[in-house]
Amino acid sequence: MKPSQRHRSRRGRRGAAEDTRGTILAAARMLFAEHGYEGTSLRRIAREASVDPALLHHYFDGKDGLLAASVELPADPGEVLAAVVELPPDQRGEALVRTLLQLWESPLQPALLTLIRSTIGSKRQSALMREIFKRRILNAVMSGTEYDDGQKELRGSLVASQILGLVIARYVVRLEPVAALPVEDVVGQVGPTVQRYLTGELQPG
Amino acid sequence: MKPSQRHRSRRGRRGAAEDTRGTILAAARMLFAEHGYEGTSLRRIAREASVDPALLHHYFDGKDGLLAASVELPADPGEVLAAVVELPPDQRGEALVRTLLQLWESPLQPALLTLIRSTIGSKRQSALMREIFKRRILNAVMSGTEYDDGQKELRGSLVASQILGLVIARYVVRLEPVAALPVEDVVGQVGPTVQRYLTGELQPG
Repeated sequence: MKPSQRHRSRRGRRGAAEDTRGTILAAARMLFAEHGYEGTSLRRIAREASVDPALLHHYFDGKDGLLAASVELPADPGEVLAAVVELPPDQRGEALVRTLLQLWESPLQPALLTLIRSTIGSKRQSALMREIFKRRILNAVMSGTEYDDGQKELRGSLVASQILGLVIARYVVRLEPVAALPVEDVVGQVGPTVQRYLTGELQPG
Repeated sequence: MKPSQRHRSRRGRRGAAEDTRGTILAAARMLFAEHGYEGTSLRRIAREASVDPALLHHYFDGKDGLLAASVELPADPGEVLAAVVELPPDQRGEALVRTLLQLWESPLQPALLTLIRSTIGSKRQSALMREIFKRRILNAVMSGTEYDDGQKELRGSLVASQILGLVIARYVVRLEPVAALPVEDVVGQVGPTVQRYLTGELQPG
């Protein structure tokens, strides 16, 4: 076989693999957004994509990995939150704000901006992000607390409302002075809010 | 003059007026976004639009009115906030959250969604909204407090971060349970945060 042929053949195989991976992702995005994570089986995704179910395990690290890949997260939530989750819940407020601001101050900022804009601009992406939140973020952030599931979800969604708004005010709308403050100043002002939502006194529901 | 001619003539005049108004608005949007509200004079807008400065007063209620028109606000911030501003500053937290949620629960919701999406999707619209915030919202919300301008801006931008995030979590991303809670429940949970930002203890800057 001539080198040029071998090269073409390798490219051809890779192209086919990327097509298969892309077809699986498109099916997963559609089904996760429409039926939620729980309501979507790997078997159903394989059928929608017209591929053998074994290929889903070949290309993705299970259903969780497929969900993460279908949203194109710039960073893995578990890794980002690992150090926060090691703290006791009543010390996570400031750490959570600090960790997320540091992520936004990193070279990942453009990818995060794209993620925020597509989440807000598209219903499907919103639905995927709700699943990511429920599956990959909420449990980590609320781990080790003794609230029931309803309280965890309420507290987690209040935390999300403050952090989402902070990130948008600072990095998207660039509202001063919150856009220009040093990270630690923002942590000092917003950390107590997040701590109250996490473990403080809320109004009885 | 025949009725049909008169009709055409009236339509022609109205068409020309709409063109002029549109030309002025396009010039104002561009200049406000580029140089800010303070850095943009009515004279400069008139020159950019190639119209007589008197026409700006004819079509718009001064520079403030021109700014509002250039953002296509679904509601006038002064009117929306009137009842909140009548309260003493240390009682405005819950009232502010309640008033803004009621606005979002009204038939204006689709227009507000469009405003949020365009603010987050476009740098120019972000710049215009920063001016609206600084000129039409911040002073109203912080009126009657004795903080210096720096403190007012810091507190106002923290309030904005929480309310922006709340509105996006509830109405755009529709994160549960915050998306489904009765207005008064959200007011009870988020009101104290807004009150702390408005008049409570912040970390010394």
